[in-house]
Amino acid sequence: MKKVIFVVVDGMSDRPIEEFKRKTPLEMANTPNMDKLAQKGISGAMNTIDIGVRAGSDTAHLALFGYDPYTYYTGRGPFEAAGLGMNLEPGDICFRTNMGTVNKDMVVIDRRAGRINSTHFIADILNETMIDGVKFLIKGDDSYRMALVMRGKNLSPKITDGDPHEDNVKVHTIEAKEDSFEAKFTAKVLNKFLEFAHEKIKDAEENVKREKEGKFPANYLLVRGPGIYPNLPSFKDKYGLKACGIAASPMYKGIAKALGMDVPRIAGTTGKPNSDLMKKVEAVKERYDKYDFFFVHVKGTDPLSHDGDFEGKRKFLEEKVDPMVGEMMKIENTLIVLTADHTTPCELKNHSADDVPVTIYAKSVRDDDVVHFNERECAKGRLGHIKGMNLMPIIIDLMGLASMYGA
Amino acid sequence: MKKVIFVVVDGMSDRPIEEFKRKTPLEMANTPNMDKLAQKGISGAMNTIDIGVRAGSDTAHLALFGYDPYTYYTGRGPFEAAGLGMNLEPGDICFRTNMGTVNKDMVVIDRRAGRINSTHFIADILNETMIDGVKFLIKGDDSYRMALVMRGKNLSPKITDGDPHEDNVKVHTIEAKEDSFEAKFTAKVLNKFLEFAHEKIKDAEENVKREKEGKFPANYLLVRGPGIYPNLPSFKDKYGLKACGIAASPMYKGIAKALGMDVPRIAGTTGKPNSDLMKKVEAVKERYDKYDFFFVHVKGTDPLSHDGDFEGKRKFLEEKVDPMVGEMMKIENTLIVLTADHTTPCELKNHSADDVPVTIYAKSVRDDDVVHFNERECAKGRLGHIKGMNLMPIIIDLMGLASMYGA
Repeated sequence: MKKVIFVVVDGMSDRPIEEFKRKTPLEMANTPNMDKLAQKGISGAMNTIDIGVRAGSDTAHLALFGYDPYTYYTGRGPFEAAGLGMNLEPGDICFRTNMGTVNKDMVVIDRRAGRINSTHFIADILNETMIDGVKFLIKGDDSYRMALVMRGKNLSPKITDGDPHEDNVKVHTIEAKEDSFEAKFTAKVLNKFLEFAHEKIKDAEENVKREKEGKFPANYLLVRGPGIYPNLPSFKDKYGLKACGIAASPMYKGIAKALGMDVPRIAGTTGKPNSDLMKKVEAVKERYDKYDFFFVHVKGTDPLSHDGDFEGKRKFLEEKVDPMVGEMMKIENTLIVLTADHTTPCELKNHSADDVPVTIYAKSVRDDDVVHFNERECAKGRLGHIKGMNLMPIIIDLMGLASMYGA
Repeated sequence: MKKVIFVVVDGMSDRPIEEFKRKTPLEMANTPNMDKLAQKGISGAMNTIDIGVRAGSDTAHLALFGYDPYTYYTGRGPFEAAGLGMNLEPGDICFRTNMGTVNKDMVVIDRRAGRINSTHFIADILNETMIDGVKFLIKGDDSYRMALVMRGKNLSPKITDGDPHEDNVKVHTIEAKEDSFEAKFTAKVLNKFLEFAHEKIKDAEENVKREKEGKFPANYLLVRGPGIYPNLPSFKDKYGLKACGIAASPMYKGIAKALGMDVPRIAGTTGKPNSDLMKKVEAVKERYDKYDFFFVHVKGTDPLSHDGDFEGKRKFLEEKVDPMVGEMMKIENTLIVLTADHTTPCELKNHSADDVPVTIYAKSVRDDDVVHFNERECAKGRLGHIKGMNLMPIIIDLMGLASMYGA
């Protein structure tokens, strides 16, 4: 059986850039390996969610793996929490959490507590707190990030963020977003916990020490992106494939974990433009016999796009992504998918709904006339215009694993 | 924020014409401005409703504006009535109505009462008639047209037409189309009203005068196209856009009004091939600062197609539509959409289900290799094959107004 390397280059796709004479970074970049992939593969244009829908990274990845986000997605929290290594259960209410600093009027002074580099002591103090029958699970990280989870009965993710998303504003009281007992109960209990937590941690030994050193204390949990941990069928159950997720950013690791993929830690990869992408290929090679499916996530293109750095994006594609793809193509008898989760135009510095290029490269694939991997050329390819949810069924068929409908 | 001019050229799209060496009127016409629009824009082929569905103008326009006709449409009546200036409420049962002439055996002698040029006197006599708790609202026009509305409880649009759609046939008794109390009740009350109305107007002063002059009296209301006035979210509520509808034909004005657009009267525009389309551009320019979205409807192509006049259609596109588009392109920082609501092949003299060409022109759009605006070339464009319901989400995203699904 063929093996699959499924490469998602985050926000790789773009719109025409005036400074590039209306070419995109991908069109401007010299990418001989990606072009060879397109020459030997079948290409298309893909709306990861649907035509005209601006996809987030989380919803887009679910769709790319064949999990309908309209069924499974309620918020980013579950994938962030899973990415920080929490063991979650369906029904858990999960939050993205920053450790922030508030003053005595509960005004946010710093949303990242002076970019504190460890929040494990917060978790040690607060983990497994029980309030009104709800258990609060909390996990630290080697950064200002944390994951917070509420476990219990009658909980709902239909509540607002506590994080005001900007400094010099009072923390927000959590409110129910709908008129249900569950939403109101969840908001009430979470407000109690956040107050309790603040009292409990503000004078913690580490915080007293930080204040003496003139640093911001980590004295408030800024929660956002609530979501309910979904009951996802595992990748193995859904497709019969043993899968491995090679990603550095927590959210993508979390999605891979939520789908039951193994997610090894890969030294040298950072989830930033400085990441050593060759380490990702090495990671695949080392584990090649052990897995059927490798999800390789490359994050660097997306922050560069959010910064509007089109030249940095071009360079990253040319100098980092293209050699990585070239190295992958040396692995024999492998199906390679190359695509993006969404378009992030440098002009817009945010996601747009424009389609993304996609190429599927495999020995038996119907190669087409596309000779360059980019937005313009892939759109002329033989795959036509597809949706993210179409991709896995095509791959499963090319692997010879699809069951027949009819006889 | 960019502003939008959304141009719908009614029935512009066609099939190959033998006399044009198998070109369409759009392919035969010399249209340098529309071609430039296609060169700088992104193009595609669009089924306004769905593949293989012959769209009416009303259902197609609803879909083009992102209102699913399968949810909102029950008949043409509501939009005709709104177009004649009636103030309607959700639940009103509305009819297209002609004033016709019947003899004493109730046989239709003339479906337009000798093309009578005013029906206001009929409205004066019949407006606000009450029968069995149902109020009949009726509005005249400077033509043989009227609008009739039933307002009350337990009403249904599932009833047949009274208009036999041809002369020398008896008027049809209204019948329920389904076995429901509402449909049967509506049919019964409407039959009573039509009989009452005939008795009341047949000897009206104006009719007696017309008969003396040898003209057909306006003595019978020929009703058709019943529909229930839908509870439509306004364009402003749905998209946050202040919209203006520039159209001359009642039905299109009615759709614009039903969506909460302002619909000014534009002198010189007629809804016919003799219309002065430059007046539409002037109307846009005069109101440019006041609105975000301009719907510009051009009707002339459709009656020419229904007449099978392919040369007239070519000429109208070349001499009227193309200069109008050229003038629009001079307005800076504007997103222009150019499309049709359906194909009306001159050969067929009626609507067909063939897709229509569409181009979206804006600064940040992913321009493609299409250099001519027509059925054949646009189908090769980078938008691919889309549906009418896809268009507004794409536009909203290009305006930078789309909300993200996910994070």
